[in-house]
Amino acid sequence: MHRFFISPDCINNTNNTAIIDKEQSKHIDKVLRIKKGEKILCFDGLGKEYIVKLIDKTNGCFIGEIINAEISNNDPKLDLRLIQGIAKGEKMDTIIQKAVEIGVSSFYPVITDYTVVKLDESKAQNRIQRWQSIAIEACKQSRRSVVPPINRVIKLYDLLHDIKSENIIMLYENEKTISLNDILKNNKNKYKEKPLYILIGPEGGFSEKETKMALEQGAVLAGLGKRILRTETAAIVALGATMYEFGELD
Amino acid sequence: MHRFFISPDCINNTNNTAIIDKEQSKHIDKVLRIKKGEKILCFDGLGKEYIVKLIDKTNGCFIGEIINAEISNNDPKLDLRLIQGIAKGEKMDTIIQKAVEIGVSSFYPVITDYTVVKLDESKAQNRIQRWQSIAIEACKQSRRSVVPPINRVIKLYDLLHDIKSENIIMLYENEKTISLNDILKNNKNKYKEKPLYILIGPEGGFSEKETKMALEQGAVLAGLGKRILRTETAAIVALGATMYEFGELD
Repeated sequence: MHRFFISPDCINNTNNTAIIDKEQSKHIDKVLRIKKGEKILCFDGLGKEYIVKLIDKTNGCFIGEIINAEISNNDPKLDLRLIQGIAKGEKMDTIIQKAVEIGVSSFYPVITDYTVVKLDESKAQNRIQRWQSIAIEACKQSRRSVVPPINRVIKLYDLLHDIKSENIIMLYENEKTISLNDILKNNKNKYKEKPLYILIGPEGGFSEKETKMALEQGAVLAGLGKRILRTETAAIVALGATMYEFGELD
Repeated sequence: MHRFFISPDCINNTNNTAIIDKEQSKHIDKVLRIKKGEKILCFDGLGKEYIVKLIDKTNGCFIGEIINAEISNNDPKLDLRLIQGIAKGEKMDTIIQKAVEIGVSSFYPVITDYTVVKLDESKAQNRIQRWQSIAIEACKQSRRSVVPPINRVIKLYDLLHDIKSENIIMLYENEKTISLNDILKNNKNKYKEKPLYILIGPEGGFSEKETKMALEQGAVLAGLGKRILRTETAAIVALGATMYEFGELD
């Protein structure tokens, strides 16, 4: 069954109906050729999944009757968050799409010392909207029901200062002794209880000042082995391996 | 130090010299502006790494003196191979690039029942050349010294028949009971000794006939959890998790 996103404010719990937005209604109508009377699967982005029967169409929007509502269990229990140094070109799109499929719970795009991409306030706003749409699409496709928020673009220094967490794993290519494997196995119980942050640098990696500050804030450095992974590969592999370690791919 | 690929037949072990091909020589000269007398890092694709001092240039090709040769240890011990149902557009390029970074030892692009891409003999030849170049580039960047061969395009049925291996893990989205985690943990010693094949379907997944035949040939089916991963995400995550499990990311 096809899967659509319905924002929670388009769900009327009193009369059990839901409004599907114009763009998706158009897709339902013109591309998928689904007709009134047929059922679709919807999710609200907050963890609920609905079976909705299309009953009407007004102003280009389908109105649906909610046949069934239930808490979806496709989202992971582990609260895994990705802090990603903004990478060039379409790499960020790829990282967000894959990170959502793998199961991250939120996403922090950060400006680091070696970030090349220049984003002013308005460009950053547009980019976040774009990334949020990609996250919604990835939820649709991967059957997740919780849409991970994309946080505003800030400097890594400020973010580290703001979150004050000890559960930050900074993937660092010069870390040759301690691996992600070591860290996850040694801290499993600790990481289960609170949000776990994976921090990945942009193409140029991290500056010495950044690793120093991260360490001061309680982060741990971890390597990913002998081969040098591109930033997007490192993000996908580190998130995938973490989910694997925590049984979230079982 | 920049890293270049030298085909083994361009290495002269008698007089300790190496010829760098025209394209890379041009890159060395015009883009990187490396001059005669400077040193570069080279690898032969078969596992050896060389420090080469540029001593001359003839017909657009740099000639280098081999200062040092050693067996590189950046390639994994695990002989992990990817059998990938040919996916649409640029996805195959992405999969090959990432698979090489992660450490696969060879790559089998296969036509499955749900493969959409049509490749005649000459198109398939071109595609393999293109994929092989991507593999070489990924080796350069990730510091691997063994270039994984891209095998010729054949049907999955024929490949399964040819390789006759019991070490095939078929990632199958309808497998809800047995996970990749279960299979890797239960077969660790067996998988260390012989080549291990990871089999990933194209966008549409596998047909019933394909899973049946794979099972008959000794393959095992494994799931990757509750979220549906795109074919390229499934490939990267499955390879990454396998390398993680075998300590190849340590």
